[in-house]
Amino acid sequence: MLKGRNLLEPMDFSLSELEEVFDLADRIIGDPAKYVHACDGKLLATLFYEPSTRTRFSFEAAMLRLGGQVIGFSEPNSSSVAKGESIADTVKTVACYADLAVMRHPKEGAPKVAAHSTSMPVINAGDGGHQHPTQTLTDLLTIRRTLGGFENITVGCCGDLKFGRTVHSLIKALSRYKNVKFILISPEELRIPDYVRKEILIKNGIEFEEVRSLQEALPKLDVLYMTRVQKERFFNEEDYIRLKDTYILDKAKMKLAKESMIVLHPLPRVNEIAVEVDEDPRAMYFVQAKNGMFVRMALIMSLLGIEG
Amino acid sequence: MLKGRNLLEPMDFSLSELEEVFDLADRIIGDPAKYVHACDGKLLATLFYEPSTRTRFSFEAAMLRLGGQVIGFSEPNSSSVAKGESIADTVKTVACYADLAVMRHPKEGAPKVAAHSTSMPVINAGDGGHQHPTQTLTDLLTIRRTLGGFENITVGCCGDLKFGRTVHSLIKALSRYKNVKFILISPEELRIPDYVRKEILIKNGIEFEEVRSLQEALPKLDVLYMTRVQKERFFNEEDYIRLKDTYILDKAKMKLAKESMIVLHPLPRVNEIAVEVDEDPRAMYFVQAKNGMFVRMALIMSLLGIEG
Amino acid sequence: MLKGRNLLEPMDFSLSELEEVFDLADRIIGDPAKYVHACDGKLLATLFYEPSTRTRFSFEAAMLRLGGQVIGFSEPNSSSVAKGESIADTVKTVACYADLAVMRHPKEGAPKVAAHSTSMPVINAGDGGHQHPTQTLTDLLTIRRTLGGFENITVGCCGDLKFGRTVHSLIKALSRYKNVKFILISPEELRIPDYVRKEILIKNGIEFEEVRSLQEALPKLDVLYMTRVQKERFFNEEDYIRLKDTYILDKAKMKLAKESMIVLHPLPRVNEIAVEVDEDPRAMYFVQAKNGMFVRMALIMSLLGIEG
Repeated sequence: MLKGRNLLEPMDFSLSELEEVFDLADRIIGDPAKYVHACDGKLLATLFYEPSTRTRFSFEAAMLRLGGQVIGFSEPNSSSVAKGESIADTVKTVACYADLAVMRHPKEGAPKVAAHSTSMPVINAGDGGHQHPTQTLTDLLTIRRTLGGFENITVGCCGDLKFGRTVHSLIKALSRYKNVKFILISPEELRIPDYVRKEILIKNGIEFEEVRSLQEALPKLDVLYMTRVQKERFFNEEDYIRLKDTYILDKAKMKLAKESMIVLHPLPRVNEIAVEVDEDPRAMYFVQAKNGMFVRMALIMSLLGIEG
Repeated sequence: MLKGRNLLEPMDFSLSELEEVFDLADRIIGDPAKYVHACDGKLLATLFYEPSTRTRFSFEAAMLRLGGQVIGFSEPNSSSVAKGESIADTVKTVACYADLAVMRHPKEGAPKVAAHSTSMPVINAGDGGHQHPTQTLTDLLTIRRTLGGFENITVGCCGDLKFGRTVHSLIKALSRYKNVKFILISPEELRIPDYVRKEILIKNGIEFEEVRSLQEALPKLDVLYMTRVQKERFFNEEDYIRLKDTYILDKAKMKLAKESMIVLHPLPRVNEIAVEVDEDPRAMYFVQAKNGMFVRMALIMSLLGIEG
Repeated sequence: MLKGRNLLEPMDFSLSELEEVFDLADRIIGDPAKYVHACDGKLLATLFYEPSTRTRFSFEAAMLRLGGQVIGFSEPNSSSVAKGESIADTVKTVACYADLAVMRHPKEGAPKVAAHSTSMPVINAGDGGHQHPTQTLTDLLTIRRTLGGFENITVGCCGDLKFGRTVHSLIKALSRYKNVKFILISPEELRIPDYVRKEILIKNGIEFEEVRSLQEALPKLDVLYMTRVQKERFFNEEDYIRLKDTYILDKAKMKLAKESMIVLHPLPRVNEIAVEVDEDPRAMYFVQAKNGMFVRMALIMSLLGIEG
């Protein structure tokens, strides 16, 4: 039972708890009309100390489509932060009004502090460069729904593997399943950090390769996880310009991939996937965005202890 | 049938489609209680890349009074724009969560781009100095409800006729009806631009006069459409101060008008209509604001294909 | 009957009208499920010309938990203020969409102007340093629920008594009941202003003392009302630092208090109450925050004339 629990890190839930959430998400996708009153009378607080329209929309739509309601802020300026209040106090007060809270915060660990201050469930919607567990749930649900499961698959991660937290979380999460192989495709400057390479991959005996060429990797992949090369991660403009176009997925490259391969991307994309790829049936990133809403619906219901 | 359509420009709907929307608006005004569940389970996204509280409130109230729900942002800073995402991608993602979207954007054509990226209906709530079609629907509904129709009427447009897009759209829209005459009342500096004078009025053989005196025009009018003289349109303070008070409607001037004339204004007003006029039964601008909500209710239902 | 009334100042309601609101609040707290549809189809506008997340959340949660809906803004920038519109016009327009409005404004008297422009009920949610009547309702309800009433009690007010408007309003409100005694605990620099001392306390023959020592006052109190020492009230950093820690309530000091004493605080706190006090059953400030939502539910229903 997930009732009353928090979701602070992608690994907070056991494999069977994850299955429980994904099974519910599947049922919601299959018959959304059945769930339009599931959260009647419940209130979600969205506490975004850092703007993130996409994530906020996804949570708010999830709650509203379950019949629940939402209060919240989308920017730090409109909050009480300026008055010197601690996160613990803010969350204790929010718990007077709401039944659960979603928090995005620029500081690592802030959602954890929040969760420990109250019995109200708290969901981490991104804390600094650290964790964004509902993105990982979204990625996993999409893989499960398209490939049928997580075992015996080869997953290519491409782009900014150094700073891209969604990739790190996905690797961590997938490393719990049997016979998952990773191909890590990035420029030298943006290789996966040691804490993932050593602490997760090598430590758990996961098979992986680090390569430079997207073309060479493509034919082997069941999942291609593309990531955005974020301008703000670079110290100078030159490096950014040189690297940002290195790994652009286009129609021509898609010809090298299996018919059954799926392309995922956490969005927003800049130009790492050409728009022409959108029409390819293997392009799953907008389906993935929609799954993000459904898995959040399942998560909200689970943490509130609502059967479905 | 308007189901699945967009509203991007005031002329997007045919005369009979407009009638369909206005008829529904009339029915909603007549019995609002009947429609409180019309949009149950539906979600509207309000994407305001430029703040406009009035327009946003009107749309949100419309959706909520139909039983629907709303997600959205009211300022560009809280959006994903900063991350370099295209409007097409933003709207494709929003379409994963919402059933229709309202967009206000400082760039002309942005709502059109949005509409072409998705099958979700998109409503233009103002794009730059260009179009604001639901304001035109509001104006038309108010004329229809008070004067019974659009034929054989004399419409005075007063104030900033150069930059005031609502006036341009209204003239365009009314020029589709029989025997509408315009009296265009403005200072020399703010006369109606050529694209309206030549392309719409002269081209369609519409009767019109351009005059300087509000007093002289008043006795002839069935509709007086006042507009705000926007400070931001002027290059220097002096010109603004000299011109802004030129066409102020007050109680004294109202004595010159017909008993049946109606005064419209898109709001907000600054001082172009004296507050003392508010009590005059011919002052229809707050009724007009309320009609704005009702016509948006009818529009939302129509685009979603909900019978009423 | 409070239907159609405004709440602009804490003393707007008679004692029996207050009882009516508190009785309803008690019934809501006793059986919240009974009220989840009380405001179905009603719309609240939250007009925050100054950010105040806590107060906004409390009102929005109140309305949503009654089945009503909310439109609003949480910052002045997203409003039409910039366009030069008067408050009267803004509120007249809002009244086209909403059934009642809550206004927070940096200028004293703004909510009064708003209320006089429309027949829609307006609630003052704080205007400048002036009034914040729903905070007073919150404080009173909490005292009534814990002590059973307002007569024959000794109330200690501690901290910034000079600028703290909540304390001034509370003193005013309690001075209407029989045999209430005040102990006013503050540094010399932050003593209660003359308009409270002379116009309310002395004029009404209320018993009160002004003291410097929290410790000495504590054993006598039935209610300890702590307040935040706001940094922005001080002209220089030094004075602030010297004074802010003067009256910190901690576990040790709580030993001096009666078993039945309650500790109130309008929140947010900075450090005037040590976190260790939170676990003390006499610490009522988070209960008070929750009561704030319930009393606003009762207030909204009363002003809308909804029986309950």
